[in-house]
Amino acid sequence: MGDSEILLKPLQPDLNLWFEERLEIGFGSVLRVLVKETLLLKKSPFQQIAVLDTAKFGRMLVLDGIINVTEFDEFAYHEMIVHVPMICHPCPRKVLVIGGGDGGAVREALKHPEVREVHLCEIDREVVEVSKEYLPEISAGLDDHRVTVHYADGAEFVKRHPGYFDVILVDSTDPVGPGAVLFREEFFRNLHAALSDEGIVTTQCESFFFHREVIGTVLASFGKVFPVTEYYYCMVPTYPSGVIGFAFGCKSSSGGKGPADKSRVAALGPLKYYSSGIHEAAFVLPRFAEAFRTPESDEPRS
Amino acid sequence: MGDSEILLKPLQPDLNLWFEERLEIGFGSVLRVLVKETLLLKKSPFQQIAVLDTAKFGRMLVLDGIINVTEFDEFAYHEMIVHVPMICHPCPRKVLVIGGGDGGAVREALKHPEVREVHLCEIDREVVEVSKEYLPEISAGLDDHRVTVHYADGAEFVKRHPGYFDVILVDSTDPVGPGAVLFREEFFRNLHAALSDEGIVTTQCESFFFHREVIGTVLASFGKVFPVTEYYYCMVPTYPSGVIGFAFGCKSSSGGKGPADKSRVAALGPLKYYSSGIHEAAFVLPRFAEAFRTPESDEPRS
Repeated sequence: MGDSEILLKPLQPDLNLWFEERLEIGFGSVLRVLVKETLLLKKSPFQQIAVLDTAKFGRMLVLDGIINVTEFDEFAYHEMIVHVPMICHPCPRKVLVIGGGDGGAVREALKHPEVREVHLCEIDREVVEVSKEYLPEISAGLDDHRVTVHYADGAEFVKRHPGYFDVILVDSTDPVGPGAVLFREEFFRNLHAALSDEGIVTTQCESFFFHREVIGTVLASFGKVFPVTEYYYCMVPTYPSGVIGFAFGCKSSSGGKGPADKSRVAALGPLKYYSSGIHEAAFVLPRFAEAFRTPESDEPRS
Repeated sequence: MGDSEILLKPLQPDLNLWFEERLEIGFGSVLRVLVKETLLLKKSPFQQIAVLDTAKFGRMLVLDGIINVTEFDEFAYHEMIVHVPMICHPCPRKVLVIGGGDGGAVREALKHPEVREVHLCEIDREVVEVSKEYLPEISAGLDDHRVTVHYADGAEFVKRHPGYFDVILVDSTDPVGPGAVLFREEFFRNLHAALSDEGIVTTQCESFFFHREVIGTVLASFGKVFPVTEYYYCMVPTYPSGVIGFAFGCKSSSGGKGPADKSRVAALGPLKYYSSGIHEAAFVLPRFAEAFRTPESDEPRS
């Protein structure tokens, strides 16, 4: 894995351990986190999996050297990848999560009283098992009777279920290695086919500070596939730049980001990040990022 | 300076230099940035000043080991500390910037056609001189005929100008060392006194992910001093957690955050971050952060 391998070495005289995320090393910045204990370090058939107990961020799941989730801020990412599309859908009964083997997105989806089935399609069984053992608060929903876990390639799985899902959440890693296929137009076409008529999809889509090209490419592909395409974001301190965004596509041309139904938001119970106000604010991008979506109009916008 | 000293040492076999910000070392996380060239490293009477040319963030001004501004993302911070209060004020003619010797806040304030006077009160003359020499795009406004630079203690300066300023922007460092006084209630009372009747103040007020206690204390003090108190934020990747917020206070009980006047926003010319949409969205906080302002109501909000 080269640059993305975990580096665990004593960097201070008292032998404290530091985890160093080298995701951005090509650009010249890295995040280092003080590690209290290395709880797990193993190789699955797909990737290197580590669970670190850290001084600041609690337990941290690290895949191929890249921070996947931390107990400190996972609520922000999971609430936002799930509740925004779920509340935009008139009645989300059948939900598919692709990737997301930690279970955090499943946990949030189950908070919607309309939900009858949540399917988790994770390629790496060991991520699910590790999460159940080391991250019980994140993976808690995986044993719910409404949940089915499929150990399969998400890109293939969606082809086998045309028209089935009301909401699909692509909780992917970055567009390198096995996750790269989840950023391609062919995959988005298969997502579209797997949605029911009013279906909505949300895919993890990087930081507008660091990944302009990826976002522009994904949104251009989304625009060819879905009649309604949007981009929204949330703040996650342990991800590069502290921001992560989502591409959002609706199968119905009358669907979209609209305001949140406050009674449905209240029915979700206590949350830490998402609210009806955040639902709308998350689609309001800084001006430089808004331009990614409409490269033809670089004029000042107000 | 101990932990906040700059650490410059070769960490790779090819002798590349890394700057390591150790602001968060007590909590266990640090940011490391690849340095192309150390352009300046000196001591002023107040602090250590460094200018580093970095691989990812362009030139970076570092004060006592803490990143102050970078060419990569300074636009976000400076547009947001300035335009939000300026657009909320009906006619901001006289503006005071406390701190902010790099000149970025002054540059943004000058974009408002109503402005007649911009006063910069910076305690450290060498920060202004270094910025003029090494950060010309940030400090460009300092030579404008409407600008007066005062080398003085901001906390004392405001006491000498009662009722004078329409908008005061406190572009401070963190609440440690010489900047600590800028986070105290006595200073906020003096700010209030230095404002004209409809005056508005905005002060740099840390990250809601990492500094709950500072924010809660500042907002409690603001609430005692100003009839209208708000908190808003912007995203700055090179600041801890990628987010920085601002305490916002209005002297008039009929003032406040209201929607932006779109014609006034358009008159500012091209911007990279601020827009009338961002103006409103910036006040919408994630639910956990909203609770800092109203600790008595921890119920789910929607």
